[in-house]
Amino acid sequence: MKYFSRMLAVTILGNNSAVPAFDRHPTSQVVTLDGQNFLVDCGEGTQIQMINYKIRRGKISHIFISHLHGDHYYGLVGLINSFSLLNHQQELHVFGPSPLQEIIEIQLKVADTRLCYPLHFHTISGEATLVDNEKIEIKCFPTEHRIECYGFSFREKRKPRKLIIEAIKENFIPLSFYENLRMGEDFVTSAGEVIKNEWVTEEAPRGRVYAYCADTRYTETIIPYIQGADMIYHESTYLDTLRDRATERFHTTAKQAGEIAQKAGVKKLLLGHFSSKYDTLEEFEVEAREVFPNSELALEGVTYKV
Amino acid sequence: MKYFSRMLAVTILGNNSAVPAFDRHPTSQVVTLDGQNFLVDCGEGTQIQMINYKIRRGKISHIFISHLHGDHYYGLVGLINSFSLLNHQQELHVFGPSPLQEIIEIQLKVADTRLCYPLHFHTISGEATLVDNEKIEIKCFPTEHRIECYGFSFREKRKPRKLIIEAIKENFIPLSFYENLRMGEDFVTSAGEVIKNEWVTEEAPRGRVYAYCADTRYTETIIPYIQGADMIYHESTYLDTLRDRATERFHTTAKQAGEIAQKAGVKKLLLGHFSSKYDTLEEFEVEAREVFPNSELALEGVTYKV
Repeated sequence: MKYFSRMLAVTILGNNSAVPAFDRHPTSQVVTLDGQNFLVDCGEGTQIQMINYKIRRGKISHIFISHLHGDHYYGLVGLINSFSLLNHQQELHVFGPSPLQEIIEIQLKVADTRLCYPLHFHTISGEATLVDNEKIEIKCFPTEHRIECYGFSFREKRKPRKLIIEAIKENFIPLSFYENLRMGEDFVTSAGEVIKNEWVTEEAPRGRVYAYCADTRYTETIIPYIQGADMIYHESTYLDTLRDRATERFHTTAKQAGEIAQKAGVKKLLLGHFSSKYDTLEEFEVEAREVFPNSELALEGVTYKV
Repeated sequence: MKYFSRMLAVTILGNNSAVPAFDRHPTSQVVTLDGQNFLVDCGEGTQIQMINYKIRRGKISHIFISHLHGDHYYGLVGLINSFSLLNHQQELHVFGPSPLQEIIEIQLKVADTRLCYPLHFHTISGEATLVDNEKIEIKCFPTEHRIECYGFSFREKRKPRKLIIEAIKENFIPLSFYENLRMGEDFVTSAGEVIKNEWVTEEAPRGRVYAYCADTRYTETIIPYIQGADMIYHESTYLDTLRDRATERFHTTAKQAGEIAQKAGVKKLLLGHFSSKYDTLEEFEVEAREVFPNSELALEGVTYKV
């Protein structure tokens, strides 16, 4: 975790679907960027997986729940509760479909639990921007599942422009204006001469993008939301021999996940949400790579740099 | 599990309080008797602990929830859901305080889950008999906790009377009447002579009793319900140096648990529900044994024969 903490990265806590099996756990992952931790889905046992993989629970400020199938959120109420018992201080924002708030609140109420930190629920629907701060923009987008379900995209904000020190010195721009230059402003000399920003700075590299495509049937409707992403996580509950079952149950095969990655022009594909039918996973990677070579299994406890 | 399966026994799945820590899990245990499995409490991750300790999930027909603090039931909805995904067939009976049913049902409903087996909720209150069949009698009794909370006692039914074969032969009682003798009936000869049951049979050993005392402040009001039990599980959240804190938070110390065991004249005490303040547990056993020598830590994965 520490190694990648300044860069956009994702750590897998659970990569299995439906029921825990073969030491694989229900869905959860942590997206990290420069000291901010965002939890995506929270299947049963997520808080134990966090302990196992030394995720700093106190750093989690936002939790995103894709949909209300239990393997994606049954660990949420326990985590919310434990945060309070562990004296969590910062605000916690939980995003998810209705009636997530009601489900959590009734459980806190019957236990007579008073949280020691502010908890805010945000009901998501359609396509929306959920977080937009100086470092990151997080959006949700609908997927095609048996019940209302959302994917999430994480876009690093473009960093401030880079100063070209030589050019700045040639133009006698004072140190006090450097921050304005980074923000893209032109400089005007005392003689009224305009020093164009692009003469003395250069563009920062564009921010990286990670998209979590949640549970979904094969659908190209998600492509606009993930187009060109540096990395996506796409479910691959089944191998392509069970393509009909996948469609029927609103899930995707590894091959189909590769097709989506290829059509969306992303750089890398992580595969997850494996059915408990499969005790080994190698075949998922083989199958996806036939369509999209830069495919990889999302393994629990592993951090993937975006 | 197999070794003890015909006798009353309990296997500990979780022995920690509040939050998971030090590889200890929230409360859950399985009481087994002759092929019947009864689950007592179901903290988050119980289904994973069942896999770890090879508990036959399909054999669970009854689940008893002591109270609605999350560390005692957050794993229930996941287990109910997994039973269906794993094609559980037999009826499942869940006993717990209100509004447990409402909490579970809303979660099944939003996921559009249709269980493949019959699920029956039974709201418990006061002191009551919950199960009474030819093998076992299970009762609940109130404890003294911050919210409504129940302990459970498991009493093996007295087995059928033992035949004294010699006496039976002397009285020429036919084989076809042996079952009636076992059930305590007298035999009447064709000449109208009454052969008293107690002349030809002897009493079976009394059934064993196990009591789970749930979460509770030190209270002697539970003694009538556990008096003379072969084994009890009593919480010992704290050591006696924190007796005031224990009382304030409606919990018990190891020493107090020993006092209850001693006053109730039970044969053996299992200690559990340890606070996450403590990374090692030896001291709990030492402290309880000063008052009640036959005290033992309830360790996860261990089966204790009653």
